[in-house]
Amino acid sequence: MTASLVPLALTELRAARERVADLVRPTPLWANDALSRELGGPIFLKLENLQRTGSFKLRGAAHKIACLLARGEAGHGVVAASAGNHAQGVARAARAVGLAATVVMPLDAPLTKIESCRNLGARVVLQGATLEEARQVAEAIAAQDGAAFLHPYDDWEIIAGQAGVGLEIIEALPDAGQIVVPLGGGGLLAGIALAVKLQRPDVRVVGVQAEAVAPWRHFLADGGLDAIPADAHTIADGIKVKLPGKCTRQVIARHVDAIVTVGDDAIAEAMVRLLERTRSLAEGAGAVGLAALMRGLIPLSPDHPTVVVVSGGNADMTLIGRSIDYGLASSGRLMSLAVRVPDTPGRLARLLGLVAEHGMNIRHVEHRRGELHVPVGMTEIILQIETRDAAHQDELIEHFRQQGVAARRLGGG
Amino acid sequence: MTASLVPLALTELRAARERVADLVRPTPLWANDALSRELGGPIFLKLENLQRTGSFKLRGAAHKIACLLARGEAGHGVVAASAGNHAQGVARAARAVGLAATVVMPLDAPLTKIESCRNLGARVVLQGATLEEARQVAEAIAAQDGAAFLHPYDDWEIIAGQAGVGLEIIEALPDAGQIVVPLGGGGLLAGIALAVKLQRPDVRVVGVQAEAVAPWRHFLADGGLDAIPADAHTIADGIKVKLPGKCTRQVIARHVDAIVTVGDDAIAEAMVRLLERTRSLAEGAGAVGLAALMRGLIPLSPDHPTVVVVSGGNADMTLIGRSIDYGLASSGRLMSLAVRVPDTPGRLARLLGLVAEHGMNIRHVEHRRGELHVPVGMTEIILQIETRDAAHQDELIEHFRQQGVAARRLGGG
Repeated sequence: MTASLVPLALTELRAARERVADLVRPTPLWANDALSRELGGPIFLKLENLQRTGSFKLRGAAHKIACLLARGEAGHGVVAASAGNHAQGVARAARAVGLAATVVMPLDAPLTKIESCRNLGARVVLQGATLEEARQVAEAIAAQDGAAFLHPYDDWEIIAGQAGVGLEIIEALPDAGQIVVPLGGGGLLAGIALAVKLQRPDVRVVGVQAEAVAPWRHFLADGGLDAIPADAHTIADGIKVKLPGKCTRQVIARHVDAIVTVGDDAIAEAMVRLLERTRSLAEGAGAVGLAALMRGLIPLSPDHPTVVVVSGGNADMTLIGRSIDYGLASSGRLMSLAVRVPDTPGRLARLLGLVAEHGMNIRHVEHRRGELHVPVGMTEIILQIETRDAAHQDELIEHFRQQGVAARRLGGG
Repeated sequence: MTASLVPLALTELRAARERVADLVRPTPLWANDALSRELGGPIFLKLENLQRTGSFKLRGAAHKIACLLARGEAGHGVVAASAGNHAQGVARAARAVGLAATVVMPLDAPLTKIESCRNLGARVVLQGATLEEARQVAEAIAAQDGAAFLHPYDDWEIIAGQAGVGLEIIEALPDAGQIVVPLGGGGLLAGIALAVKLQRPDVRVVGVQAEAVAPWRHFLADGGLDAIPADAHTIADGIKVKLPGKCTRQVIARHVDAIVTVGDDAIAEAMVRLLERTRSLAEGAGAVGLAALMRGLIPLSPDHPTVVVVSGGNADMTLIGRSIDYGLASSGRLMSLAVRVPDTPGRLARLLGLVAEHGMNIRHVEHRRGELHVPVGMTEIILQIETRDAAHQDELIEHFRQQGVAARRLGGG
């Protein structure tokens, strides 16, 4: 927007942090022994999913609102368009200073996210088939009400707010070697890169996008952005941004060392790993950094810690079970098997006996006679089994084979 | 066991905390605005589920091992019996000082818990049908190897370790009014009660048990313990302790103000609430404190903060999805409906149209013709629907009724 209180200097970033200190919580930066062993280098996690409202977005929103107030530009409230974390950050930050907030969400926004914004005191307007349409509605409302429209990332004052994450990391862990950051519109990555590089140019800063929505793929090579198909989908919906910002591009071109992309399988695995290893919930976007490390996409230093920023934890409650199962399945800890056996008494009991011999837990058994695709005289049994890893699964299938039982893995496996 | 470094004085509890400072992490004590509004008084959460190994048990185990080492009694390693958090605490604490740890787990211990202990470097012995049998095996192994057997709670040095939670609370929040603590064997409650009452006798300390396994139910009234049926079951398996300790009884009789019990429905709801509100995972036992507050079992002060201790987060990954669904269902946010309609074309489409009009998401549809309990000419459709609350569910059922469609809620709800 107009004049900015915060360009790119370190003192400005520090001032930004001061402005929001009442509301924004310094989040834990903790070594994770299990992940360090597993990945072969010291790993620290910056748990921004434990931030108030469940994501770093509160930082930028709170800072933007503080700047607007200081300039006397917030008299008629604030408006944002978002189906997620930005909306919650804006709602919470506005409430803290007694400002009216309007949040425009697309029509298909999940019930839980709508409720969270309402619980934070925001007026929720459901309009638009896409986030882009919701944004147009939000800008129209802002113009009509004389309220301030808060862009989720393409704004220097938002970026200065997100920079707080980088300041906290360097202060708490001066010997950090590299920082791995989720990348969507680029607000968080730009903020962290500024905070880090302005004081410690030797620390590597790496952005991670979701494979399916990766406009930044060639950006560091040629400055261009890849076009993303309209129906592109990823489990990391928090970074499903097709058109990155101008301010963020400027910072990222100058201060970011590498950008990698990672697929949804790895992201789901990383979500499970984080829940197990930190007992904290990461949404898909929050887990991309660990996912990239688990896939070996970012070299680790054995001496200098790698900091993984877990940016948010607002996963949809009603989908968590499925995400976990998906992650367990892709890491070999859950398997669905279709097993065909002659339709005679005692078969199911014998089958389950074999499974028990391998020390596996059975989670689900489905035995339906008369499925159309199964020959008469045969029956198909679907087993969902908890296993240790892929090798453990192979053992069972091989054992079945030796007993003359045909078993077929279902799903990706 | 024999002579104890730590009786009941405050200086001893503080010394205990010093002894484990390298390994034990001070955990966050954070105000939770949403829960404070909802429950009508200031609520702080002590997130001990974010402790290393995912529970407070590390504190006691680390302190016990430090004491054994100081007395030269740990030369032949340590042995514990546990299917859960105590095992992980012992394994981790032993590894930190290069000591061999053996953990005896009952035969039906979940695969994931066995793996966690192995990953922490412990030798895992699978033996015994129950935890009691596993404990006998562990004591036999300890005797044979000359190793030290570590009781999970009935030991002054373990209790002194757990007291660290109480010390941290009083330091960080001197105006705390009451502290709500999960209660199983009583180690955590006794430790916190000591740390608190020895310096601040005015702060209320309340223990919370699971309804189904509540031996302490009348303890404060008459000093007796209730017998618990052998097959008693609760979602809060971390506090499924039938025979509390002698040391813990002594402290609790003297220093605890109240003991309440809470059912599994409330516990599952509290797990969901904690995951949503803190983005951190509580196991069933860790969620009992919030569950008791949500059910109105513990009066809140509007002025002095109530601290809820979330004791652990080692929930079984493969069960989390189900626990969440259970919690969503019992709080009116997920509903299964059986709907009977004439078996004619277009019926399902019309039904789903009605649901959409109420702004509900459908999660699962099952349409099976030919179920044995449905009259010929009718068909039964099972819908699983995400809803806002119980009133929202009633609206839909009433709307169905007005359209001449019989709908029946499935399950408890």
